[in-house]
Amino acid sequence: MDRRKFIKKAATTAVVGAAASTISAPALSAGKKQWIAVSAFGKAGLLGQALEEFAKFVGAASQGRLTIKPYHAGELVKPFEALDAVQSGTAQMGYGAPYYWAGKSDSISFVAAMPYGMTAQEQNAWAYYGGGIDMADKAAYNPLGLKFLPMGNTGNQMGGWYAKQINTVADLKGLKFRMPGLGGEILKTFGVNVVLLPGSEVLPALTSGAIDGTEWIGPAADMGKGLYKVVNNYYYPGWHEPATILDGFFDMKEWNKLDDDLKQIVTHGAAHTNLMILSKFQAINNTAMHKLVNENGVKLRTYSDELLTAIGERAATVVPDIASRSADAKKLYNHIIDFRSGMLNWSNYSEAAFLAARVAAPFKKI
Amino acid sequence: MDRRKFIKKAATTAVVGAAASTISAPALSAGKKQWIAVSAFGKAGLLGQALEEFAKFVGAASQGRLTIKPYHAGELVKPFEALDAVQSGTAQMGYGAPYYWAGKSDSISFVAAMPYGMTAQEQNAWAYYGGGIDMADKAAYNPLGLKFLPMGNTGNQMGGWYAKQINTVADLKGLKFRMPGLGGEILKTFGVNVVLLPGSEVLPALTSGAIDGTEWIGPAADMGKGLYKVVNNYYYPGWHEPATILDGFFDMKEWNKLDDDLKQIVTHGAAHTNLMILSKFQAINNTAMHKLVNENGVKLRTYSDELLTAIGERAATVVPDIASRSADAKKLYNHIIDFRSGMLNWSNYSEAAFLAARVAAPFKKI
Repeated sequence: MDRRKFIKKAATTAVVGAAASTISAPALSAGKKQWIAVSAFGKAGLLGQALEEFAKFVGAASQGRLTIKPYHAGELVKPFEALDAVQSGTAQMGYGAPYYWAGKSDSISFVAAMPYGMTAQEQNAWAYYGGGIDMADKAAYNPLGLKFLPMGNTGNQMGGWYAKQINTVADLKGLKFRMPGLGGEILKTFGVNVVLLPGSEVLPALTSGAIDGTEWIGPAADMGKGLYKVVNNYYYPGWHEPATILDGFFDMKEWNKLDDDLKQIVTHGAAHTNLMILSKFQAINNTAMHKLVNENGVKLRTYSDELLTAIGERAATVVPDIASRSADAKKLYNHIIDFRSGMLNWSNYSEAAFLAARVAAPFKKI
Repeated sequence: MDRRKFIKKAATTAVVGAAASTISAPALSAGKKQWIAVSAFGKAGLLGQALEEFAKFVGAASQGRLTIKPYHAGELVKPFEALDAVQSGTAQMGYGAPYYWAGKSDSISFVAAMPYGMTAQEQNAWAYYGGGIDMADKAAYNPLGLKFLPMGNTGNQMGGWYAKQINTVADLKGLKFRMPGLGGEILKTFGVNVVLLPGSEVLPALTSGAIDGTEWIGPAADMGKGLYKVVNNYYYPGWHEPATILDGFFDMKEWNKLDDDLKQIVTHGAAHTNLMILSKFQAINNTAMHKLVNENGVKLRTYSDELLTAIGERAATVVPDIASRSADAKKLYNHIIDFRSGMLNWSNYSEAAFLAARVAAPFKKI
């Protein structure tokens, strides 16, 4: 409670401060809305900058009828307290990744990613035209008093960094590996000693040998973290997070008060952010992968067929087991599995078949 | 000239008519902008509806400071005259696919799609964070007095419909096949009799045997066209159009007159449209593919390795040959090839490896 009171006070002070410096008196007097957004991500990174741009767009497009002041990780509340802050009324909007709020909801992690689940393109099809946003709202966000919008996607992640090569199911036994979420739950069943560590402790733990390996995100983010300086076996594909949705979430009472044109500005801004983050990750991963391999001696290794098959089969029992513990998680799991089963079909005939075929064309610059 | 005059007159009349019924007198008097958008696509389809939604968003978000009145294919000008109409000042915005304007520009088709080129996700990375929009503007749109924004993507198309199975390079010789664009240019070098037909003539030509086959778009659009009623060999992957960018284009003089907040509304609206069209195509292709195969006896067949390899190798000589005929096309080709070569790498370790691996997880509903 003390923390909440402090936050409320800090937030109010911050708003007044921001208002005094950036919003003119007539604007303030016209009953315009001022929101606070709290984020789980730092300001400097790609995701922090994306939130800044989103807020600028909403302010500009609405001509100040709705201004959003972003507070990045730690600026107003701790990263993983962003959802609390929206529920308590300190902020009207939050930003993060759905599985950050697993302590608040048994179902919400399923919105983020599922091992062996869907690609970013498929997740977007699910969210916007497969009833995904509605289902996520009904089975995860609305029960928390929130309205959800997809607001970013990491795309396919990498499988992780390993001190030693792993080839067989036997190699997993006793391995000390950092992998949060559903992927970690699956690895546990193979005797992996699954370790949970905050981001700042990953490199030290890898360096000291406290862990034998870790997954992180993808080439760009992993390079920034310096993991290649300690271990150099870099595995693919990222079966545990084939793509991860980032979430914008809104105090439902505040959301419902918005005029339709402001709702449209926010939904379009969120979709724009979604597309831009995915596009940027793709563009920079490409460059980072090249540097890791060609300038830093990283060895790209594919998970063996034995491992991918065994882990995939295990995923198909562990994930529904976890989903069955909550009625809402079960709803979300079934909804996603239904959509995935169709996309599995279409994507194999389109994206997968094309990606395999196009290596035949040795284009050169002219 | 007569046509242009008629169009100008029709456009003016239409605007006055629209204004009288939907815009109040004070709004009209405040110097607000009213644009006409001309589209190459029909109103009823997915793309026509997307343009309607884009126009509604711009009007609502700008509170009527910029209203866009869409005229769909044939309503004001013929489908392929949309770019003419913007250049002549009849309209301020146009909508279509870049290769529709090949008669106006030697380079513009490269913005749409390239055989064995990039997926939709890669094209978006190229456009937004690989300098693609700038390059497309410099090497294709600006020389026509236009500003370009990506405003939709079909995603990976299907390879096409064939009366008889094709397995070898020899099977291509003498085949009468409908395939426009760069894909058709490649097939010609194998002795295919490449036929160009407007959409309305495709089904009759297939029925009469005037053509032995045709590519169209993907499962959803192809099913709507009824091609499965005549032939049932449906080939994949769509090597000729792995993804196709749709273009919004703007009279540069009008674009430059927009205040920054209106530019932001238009760019965000266009990116939103881009993401929504791709997402919708993915969602409905999935369903349509299922119906084609399970309810209509369609046989899915993959192009043989022999064909994919031979056509790919040929693409790598034919496409740069065509690009080398124009300085602007050469610039665009080199820019795309550069970006593609990196993405080829990253996408193989991420999307391709994941799509191949995930079939191992036999998820079932609970």
